[in-house]
Amino acid sequence: MLYFRNDYSQGACREVLDALTETNLIPTAGYGTDQFCAAAAETIRGLCEAPSAQVHFLVGGTQVNKTAIGAFLRPYEAVIAAATGHICVHETGAIEQNGHKILALPSPDGKLRPQQIRAAAERHCDEHMVLPRLVYVSNTTEVGTVYSLPELTALSACCRELGLLLYCDGARLGSAMTVEGADTSFADYARLCDAFTIGGTKNGLLFGEALVLTNPALFPHFRHAMKQQGAILAKGRLLGVQFDAVLRSGAYLRLARHANTMAERLRRGLLDLGYRMAVDSPSNQLFPLLTPAQEERLREVCAYEIQSRDERGVCVRFVTSWATTEEDVDELLNNLKEM
Amino acid sequence: MLYFRNDYSQGACREVLDALTETNLIPTAGYGTDQFCAAAAETIRGLCEAPSAQVHFLVGGTQVNKTAIGAFLRPYEAVIAAATGHICVHETGAIEQNGHKILALPSPDGKLRPQQIRAAAERHCDEHMVLPRLVYVSNTTEVGTVYSLPELTALSACCRELGLLLYCDGARLGSAMTVEGADTSFADYARLCDAFTIGGTKNGLLFGEALVLTNPALFPHFRHAMKQQGAILAKGRLLGVQFDAVLRSGAYLRLARHANTMAERLRRGLLDLGYRMAVDSPSNQLFPLLTPAQEERLREVCAYEIQSRDERGVCVRFVTSWATTEEDVDELLNNLKEM
Amino acid sequence: MLYFRNDYSQGACREVLDALTETNLIPTAGYGTDQFCAAAAETIRGLCEAPSAQVHFLVGGTQVNKTAIGAFLRPYEAVIAAATGHICVHETGAIEQNGHKILALPSPDGKLRPQQIRAAAERHCDEHMVLPRLVYVSNTTEVGTVYSLPELTALSACCRELGLLLYCDGARLGSAMTVEGADTSFADYARLCDAFTIGGTKNGLLFGEALVLTNPALFPHFRHAMKQQGAILAKGRLLGVQFDAVLRSGAYLRLARHANTMAERLRRGLLDLGYRMAVDSPSNQLFPLLTPAQEERLREVCAYEIQSRDERGVCVRFVTSWATTEEDVDELLNNLKEM
Amino acid sequence: MLYFRNDYSQGACREVLDALTETNLIPTAGYGTDQFCAAAAETIRGLCEAPSAQVHFLVGGTQVNKTAIGAFLRPYEAVIAAATGHICVHETGAIEQNGHKILALPSPDGKLRPQQIRAAAERHCDEHMVLPRLVYVSNTTEVGTVYSLPELTALSACCRELGLLLYCDGARLGSAMTVEGADTSFADYARLCDAFTIGGTKNGLLFGEALVLTNPALFPHFRHAMKQQGAILAKGRLLGVQFDAVLRSGAYLRLARHANTMAERLRRGLLDLGYRMAVDSPSNQLFPLLTPAQEERLREVCAYEIQSRDERGVCVRFVTSWATTEEDVDELLNNLKEM
Repeated sequence: MLYFRNDYSQGACREVLDALTETNLIPTAGYGTDQFCAAAAETIRGLCEAPSAQVHFLVGGTQVNKTAIGAFLRPYEAVIAAATGHICVHETGAIEQNGHKILALPSPDGKLRPQQIRAAAERHCDEHMVLPRLVYVSNTTEVGTVYSLPELTALSACCRELGLLLYCDGARLGSAMTVEGADTSFADYARLCDAFTIGGTKNGLLFGEALVLTNPALFPHFRHAMKQQGAILAKGRLLGVQFDAVLRSGAYLRLARHANTMAERLRRGLLDLGYRMAVDSPSNQLFPLLTPAQEERLREVCAYEIQSRDERGVCVRFVTSWATTEEDVDELLNNLKEM
Repeated sequence: MLYFRNDYSQGACREVLDALTETNLIPTAGYGTDQFCAAAAETIRGLCEAPSAQVHFLVGGTQVNKTAIGAFLRPYEAVIAAATGHICVHETGAIEQNGHKILALPSPDGKLRPQQIRAAAERHCDEHMVLPRLVYVSNTTEVGTVYSLPELTALSACCRELGLLLYCDGARLGSAMTVEGADTSFADYARLCDAFTIGGTKNGLLFGEALVLTNPALFPHFRHAMKQQGAILAKGRLLGVQFDAVLRSGAYLRLARHANTMAERLRRGLLDLGYRMAVDSPSNQLFPLLTPAQEERLREVCAYEIQSRDERGVCVRFVTSWATTEEDVDELLNNLKEM
Repeated sequence: MLYFRNDYSQGACREVLDALTETNLIPTAGYGTDQFCAAAAETIRGLCEAPSAQVHFLVGGTQVNKTAIGAFLRPYEAVIAAATGHICVHETGAIEQNGHKILALPSPDGKLRPQQIRAAAERHCDEHMVLPRLVYVSNTTEVGTVYSLPELTALSACCRELGLLLYCDGARLGSAMTVEGADTSFADYARLCDAFTIGGTKNGLLFGEALVLTNPALFPHFRHAMKQQGAILAKGRLLGVQFDAVLRSGAYLRLARHANTMAERLRRGLLDLGYRMAVDSPSNQLFPLLTPAQEERLREVCAYEIQSRDERGVCVRFVTSWATTEEDVDELLNNLKEM
Repeated sequence: MLYFRNDYSQGACREVLDALTETNLIPTAGYGTDQFCAAAAETIRGLCEAPSAQVHFLVGGTQVNKTAIGAFLRPYEAVIAAATGHICVHETGAIEQNGHKILALPSPDGKLRPQQIRAAAERHCDEHMVLPRLVYVSNTTEVGTVYSLPELTALSACCRELGLLLYCDGARLGSAMTVEGADTSFADYARLCDAFTIGGTKNGLLFGEALVLTNPALFPHFRHAMKQQGAILAKGRLLGVQFDAVLRSGAYLRLARHANTMAERLRRGLLDLGYRMAVDSPSNQLFPLLTPAQEERLREVCAYEIQSRDERGVCVRFVTSWATTEEDVDELLNNLKEM
């Protein structure tokens, strides 16, 4: 069975497994107060050119979004997000469970624009409505598109003007930073956002998201918020070990670039075979349109998600990862060719 | 530096590391819907003699307590727990964050008695007070004591009579099941509790708590509750692989027994040296009383937690684990002998 | 200054003030456990032909929506509502504060249709998304439109088929039941909904919303939920006295009909003067379109809300009430005529 | 039937009813943005000698405690209160429903001492425990005792030193300010607390608690928090009208003094008859001990609450109010004499 379902279908990359094995029996303090987390945080501050940033390590994506956003907001404050945003749809109301409304703005390409944010902020003008306070973006987005540096810069300026926090969900940040024509660096996110995550789960770690806080107003007592959310890992060292292993060695961007390269090979192959794409996505998620008959045959040989079904056909999602091989791609293309 | 701070100071036992390495590149579905989790759940149902139980795998202890209790209760329902309970003190208000009051009952030995529960239930008699609905116990308790089978049976009968759910936090369940004179089995917990956990983090896994639901009223939509709490691990397979590795092989109880044996060696040594214990604990947590001068010297050579300071002296906590060696124990005793 | 801002601009109707004064010094038990609340509840059960319904009295609209919906749902369950719904926009995220997502469906006329509900329910198919569980409608709606009996019957059938609760916010229920061609009765709401409110605040009471629960699954411990939300009035008698005064005497529907009649007089006058309506509303809220110049002059002599501004002009909202007089209406029309 | 159950058994005092009747038909803006609320707030700022204080009007006691404390705290922050505190016991977990733990400290007389607060703050020293942030006191307390000015001053100094907010629940503030030997003024509460309430419900209003915020850090967006909690009354004017009627005229303290005087008459009579008191309470709540036989006979002729039953006897609670007459007191004493 071919596997293009997601980028977290397998365990960890070699660097991660080796580092975990090597450090396995060294005793450390718990809860991320160990030397490995300290080293990884220092590595991240260096990459981000943000020597005073706070860095926290959490296990998963929903957990980090829920913990961070819940910690940042007052009860009546709300989040602005694209309607396709992960927190809007696929986190089972985790943000609302903490008490916060999400103002979901329409966005066919998964990206927010400053004028949308401005209009939403202006509409919410009195105490009978929630108070927008944080803008959530994800890069890459949930439909595989990528914010460019000018786009992020404009969003950041808009947020600062309006007194809104800018939070970037970087579950696939590596992919965003290594697509063809990518123009953003860790330091850009640190400079433009109040907080952002560097995703590990979808880029070769067993698990883990690093949360970088650059706005000092968000620093106080953040670990209290983590603990209350069940988001401090007892053996927190596992997060430090993994992140340091991939970030210091450069493996983080290399693995992401590999996933993008595999996606590009697949994308070209699909276009050559005449398939159309529902979204023009340059990153490691592709959204080709199949006929229902094609899709029914494909599912016999390949695992993937179905994004939607409509009059255009069945939109499936193929995701490549650090573990995808050229052979996997070519075999998938061969299967699609025969249909 | 000697390390008796806790039972999660090191990585994972050999069985776990091997199993993770062996399965590393096998692609699976995400979120615990894979074959490894299915196998581990089946193993647990077998050990519990509970063929219809639901088994869920979560990453950490606070997370599983918060998710389970939050899912089980209506908004105005409350938890009854010993004042020493982990959820009362050391989870930063995680249960309250989900909206639920904990009625903390005094208990010098960390255990609850039926008559206390009955009195608390009777006191809460109208809509101006919370409605007690769930009794939280931990085994072993936070002060190292152990509920016997007759004690658990009496608690269970009391809860059923009063319409209360019985939930057992088994973060150290292996230790409770393997102390000298232990009389409880997995099947007992399954039979007597509505839900309980089998702790992995403190017994040789990298991380992980297995939650066993035996009361069918608690089954519907539990995975929705998990996801909303950020408590479904993307690579959920890691939990299945680890639990199956230790439970099927019997390593789970063997590792716990080892920790208890090391604690027993330490306990006898401490008593031989004339140290008194603040609590009479038969499991892998010991609470000897030192003088302030002794404690100041010991901290130079050994890592541990300080439980409390009062007129009796400094009560320290020594925790043994699957990774503690006889040499570690003897070296600690040697240090204490010289003081 | 003319006053068409809302239907809660003045105190109470004569029946209410008299009843409060007459009963003022009679001592009663607190918290709505008094004889006046019992009588009012019995009156409501009679009007609703629902002898086993639970009736609760709360102070305000946001409070009753928040308390009821919060009590009915499990943490991961969600509400389906029209995007114009009061709970979506004008309750400052009160539903989300209790932890629940609202799935806001587009609706130009403020009403939901069964097919929308069905599609939303089908889209939310797994544990990564919230579980729709309650459909919120308001009658009259926030844009003054009215659900007919066939429409409500179809919604009810759809909800029952899909296992969804149907909740009707009746803040302006009196208006809905007395518009030209109205075809719904108290008994219809009791039969078709799982719970609904009979609004007092906007129909001549000082304050008060009666909540009628007809689905017995919603009965247990509802007063616990009320108390926890701060929604049990100490002198609960005030609610019973007021509701019984207007419901038993028939004043409730008479006052509502008066408000509708005044609105109809105003509507005809507006149309005669050539004004267009942004929404075709038969009830006591009217949404005429003015030019910016007209609106600027009108605000000198009349209080009202501005609904929106766009290329069609300034959409203002005129609301009539039990206290509106023909003279008020004619004076407003005279002012508008001169513009 | 005699009525000593509580101080909210009847409607409103004459001043309040008259003011409501007189202003009944004056149209105003909704939600407490009217001229009556503005006037009452100004009156309160004057009485408090706090010209920059924010004043908000809410309907009930649980509602104001829940709204204020919920608005003031971050998610992981906790409240310190006496175990007898209203929020600990009789608000059905309303504070916890907003996510906050209450640290309940033992207090036989219902009062907190600085050393208790200091010890609790010191115990909560890291991110594994909640962060104490607000001290809740009530004056009079739930057992009828009264904080003196030196006591409040010491509490205030302790809180400021420790970075804790001081919040005083003044549901019976009038009684506290008018007991024999009372030494506190409105201005004292404004000076010593960060926020406090002036209770109306238990002192002659139909309903209403005025919340005074003096710490400017608590000002921003407080009305958003109120609205989200369903705590902005649509006809907010009713609150302004009532508070201004009793505060400007001096009726507020006069009514409270009357209740205290009636209690004093009752207290002396009880002691003369040989009854003992469970608590030495100088205010309008008395807690005499009856024998079970006495209590059974008394309940035939008088309504009251039972506080507790133990080996000392049945502790009942008699509450006097603005509406209690000398005849009521004497008749109760006559009944008790015959027993």
